[in-house]
Amino acid sequence: MTFSVQILGSNSAIPTPERNPSAQLLNFNENFFLIDCAEGTQLQLRKFRTKFQRINHIFISHLHGDHYLGLLGLIFTFHLLDRKKELHIYSNPDLFDIIDATLKAGNTTLGYQLVKHHLKAEVSEIIFDNGKLEVQTVPLNHRIPTWGFVFREKNVPLKIWKYMLDRYNIPFQEINLIKNGLDYILENGDVIKNEALTLPSYKPGSYAYISDTIYDESIIPYIQNVDVLYHETTFLNDKVKSAHEKFHTTAAEAALIAHKANVGKLFMGHFSARYDDLTLFLNEARPVFEKSFITSDGDIFDVYDNFQA
Amino acid sequence: MTFSVQILGSNSAIPTPERNPSAQLLNFNENFFLIDCAEGTQLQLRKFRTKFQRINHIFISHLHGDHYLGLLGLIFTFHLLDRKKELHIYSNPDLFDIIDATLKAGNTTLGYQLVKHHLKAEVSEIIFDNGKLEVQTVPLNHRIPTWGFVFREKNVPLKIWKYMLDRYNIPFQEINLIKNGLDYILENGDVIKNEALTLPSYKPGSYAYISDTIYDESIIPYIQNVDVLYHETTFLNDKVKSAHEKFHTTAAEAALIAHKANVGKLFMGHFSARYDDLTLFLNEARPVFEKSFITSDGDIFDVYDNFQA
Repeated sequence: MTFSVQILGSNSAIPTPERNPSAQLLNFNENFFLIDCAEGTQLQLRKFRTKFQRINHIFISHLHGDHYLGLLGLIFTFHLLDRKKELHIYSNPDLFDIIDATLKAGNTTLGYQLVKHHLKAEVSEIIFDNGKLEVQTVPLNHRIPTWGFVFREKNVPLKIWKYMLDRYNIPFQEINLIKNGLDYILENGDVIKNEALTLPSYKPGSYAYISDTIYDESIIPYIQNVDVLYHETTFLNDKVKSAHEKFHTTAAEAALIAHKANVGKLFMGHFSARYDDLTLFLNEARPVFEKSFITSDGDIFDVYDNFQA
Repeated sequence: MTFSVQILGSNSAIPTPERNPSAQLLNFNENFFLIDCAEGTQLQLRKFRTKFQRINHIFISHLHGDHYLGLLGLIFTFHLLDRKKELHIYSNPDLFDIIDATLKAGNTTLGYQLVKHHLKAEVSEIIFDNGKLEVQTVPLNHRIPTWGFVFREKNVPLKIWKYMLDRYNIPFQEINLIKNGLDYILENGDVIKNEALTLPSYKPGSYAYISDTIYDESIIPYIQNVDVLYHETTFLNDKVKSAHEKFHTTAAEAALIAHKANVGKLFMGHFSARYDDLTLFLNEARPVFEKSFITSDGDIFDVYDNFQA
């Protein structure tokens, strides 16, 4: 079981040799999802030796350049590497006009299909669900239409509640059927519902990606209790005025969101290039929410909080 | 006096951590010109510690992604760095539609003006001339409209032809006037034209950038006798068929162009990512044209061949 996220870019708008702008690679049991795709993301994917050709779904939070300008290069590279599989892109639909104009200018017909999913402004939707994982949008409060994404594992394998095995004296050959979701019928014809016999075999993981946004408590219902919250922290308290003017968040504000939403851990990123010493973000976040962490390009973190296989 | 070129990307379409796709920074007496701008170019400009904020003119050869997908990021970075100076872009005008759509999607109004110069297909034009340097387009034969660029120094400072000083017994105080281009009038009223009295103080430099194109001798008149020719060499002889199908050039073919055009030196680049050992390009080019060289990201070469200050 894998549910992890690799940081491909931890900076805000301006790239530096150490810190690229936003992109993350989510690995859910070797299914790969790309979240945002700043300029240079394809190089980061190579540098960190990821299985990037297995990315089938790309989620773009909004159309500021530092969140998507690497997408066209990745699309072309997939084409040159002879990709045949569909590539799903979830975005503000204005992006698709830019993609189409770029392909047309280069007289390029891709060897694979782009499947374009239009995100709807100001509403939350389930935009992906493969039975094991679902992705829900979170409308964010930034200068242009922007979405966060919550990834929730679902339908985790069941395990038998041992107490019930004994209580109903369930025979061994029935156990796998019950684990697969079937009810159990007693000799007298009474039906014992599956839910009464089973438990999830582990706590399903959940991950929320929240970038870019001003401090906004309206997102809390969507991210309540997630294992890991990534929340942008472009600025420190010294620039709280800039943060509000530019619809960004400070470290302490993100920590307050994490606290109020009762998340497992807070990962911070989208740092302004003005800051060299990122431990300052910890200093400001941890008094508010202790399990706060900073991210660096290349970092991989597990989403599972208390994983029990 | 400086007339140099720094390679920012020596690879063809797919970037690798060692070799970025096409971009070059031309420095003419601290006036900076960017030629092509692949994804990642702004990071290369930082990595090589260039004075990239002094770039005022950007020339885009064609609209395949590996030649311009870094332009939008650079435009945004200039904006974030509070640029006020005009930025001139010379391109297939389809690029300007993509730029406009990208700015609109991000609701961005740049703090400086983009001056858009439309390149005309299939004709050669002088597209820049500041009295010291001129830039001429060269129509290339690629899969989509593509232009090479020839940079020629002009009006180099004059020096007096010493023989004439003695012959006409020209007084000392006249010398600077003649160096500035004036004719000299003899006591009898005869006019000695400036051209008869002066020589250029050094051989003006010239540089030709030719990428991408199939082998095409029609470019020779435009690049004849330049000091340095950069010519794409995407492939070696083992892939000559691919080269022709994809409208690219092999090392030996570029060397033949260099030979026929009587250039000073040939610099090769735009290498396919399939090749690890680039000395093979030298092996194939040098038997045809001895002064052939390969380029690597970060290389700086002087354009002046026999510079005498």
